[in-house]
Amino acid sequence: MTAEDWPQVWPFFEEIVQAGETYAYPPDLTSEQARLLWTMSPPGQTVVLEEDGRVLGSATMGPNRPGRGRHVGTASFMVSSDARGRGVGRRLGEYVVQWHRDQGFRAIQFNAVVETNDAAVRLWEALGFRIIGTVPAAFDSAAHGLVGLHVMYLPLE
Amino acid sequence: MTAEDWPQVWPFFEEIVQAGETYAYPPDLTSEQARLLWTMSPPGQTVVLEEDGRVLGSATMGPNRPGRGRHVGTASFMVSSDARGRGVGRRLGEYVVQWHRDQGFRAIQFNAVVETNDAAVRLWEALGFRIIGTVPAAFDSAAHGLVGLHVMYLPLE
Repeated sequence: MTAEDWPQVWPFFEEIVQAGETYAYPPDLTSEQARLLWTMSPPGQTVVLEEDGRVLGSATMGPNRPGRGRHVGTASFMVSSDARGRGVGRRLGEYVVQWHRDQGFRAIQFNAVVETNDAAVRLWEALGFRIIGTVPAAFDSAAHGLVGLHVMYLPLE
Repeated sequence: MTAEDWPQVWPFFEEIVQAGETYAYPPDLTSEQARLLWTMSPPGQTVVLEEDGRVLGSATMGPNRPGRGRHVGTASFMVSSDARGRGVGRRLGEYVVQWHRDQGFRAIQFNAVVETNDAAVRLWEALGFRIIGTVPAAFDSAAHGLVGLHVMYLPLE
């Protein structure tokens, strides 16, 4: 993701966080604060999926932990609401899995997949992830109240 | 924890990280970098357990996630090697559980308890925590090679 991409990411980032269904980000982030949170430095990175100059979605990826945990990666995804149902999440997910393989990670861990986010849970399961466990009532969903957060995992070997 | 406490925390912090059995911190942290990582700001805090002016252990605590996840807390613990077996971890653990209750948290989640860290796993289970799931081979233990990381959980209601 370049600095020029962010003005196209921020509107759907903000809309997704404000909707309160999928991400535990601090409320009332400014665009600049959000950009800093979403932009991963090496050995991680942040990418966008673009069609005809229009950014449809974005993903961050990199080590889930430093030091003795750095061989397991993690990632986060955001897709513009007007691009849903077009396979953007799947393409970003497939890219992220391949990137982790190429970088030599041994596995990918998602730390907090909201259990009511059916589209995400189904997509990650379709890509081979399984649910390691679910932390009960760990997310305060705007529509559903307190719901669980899945830890999901894909080995890469 | 005050600035005056840190010179007593840093030696066991460094020893514990260097031992490579329990924490995935960045390697080769300076004392100042470690102090910044270990010092939690409100709504979290960092405490020390002191006896006769000697710091025996330290704990950090606060929300595990911001925003819609801030009702679940988390914590980390370090105990000086020459104070082990004296209930320092237990006293810090009990303090942390009570602090979360007092602050109105609904639960406590530990994100990464190394499965070979028997003393910690037993202590948290004795305090009522249960293992939600274990991420396989997520920690590169100096003594044991790749071992799992437990997600552990204590509801407070």
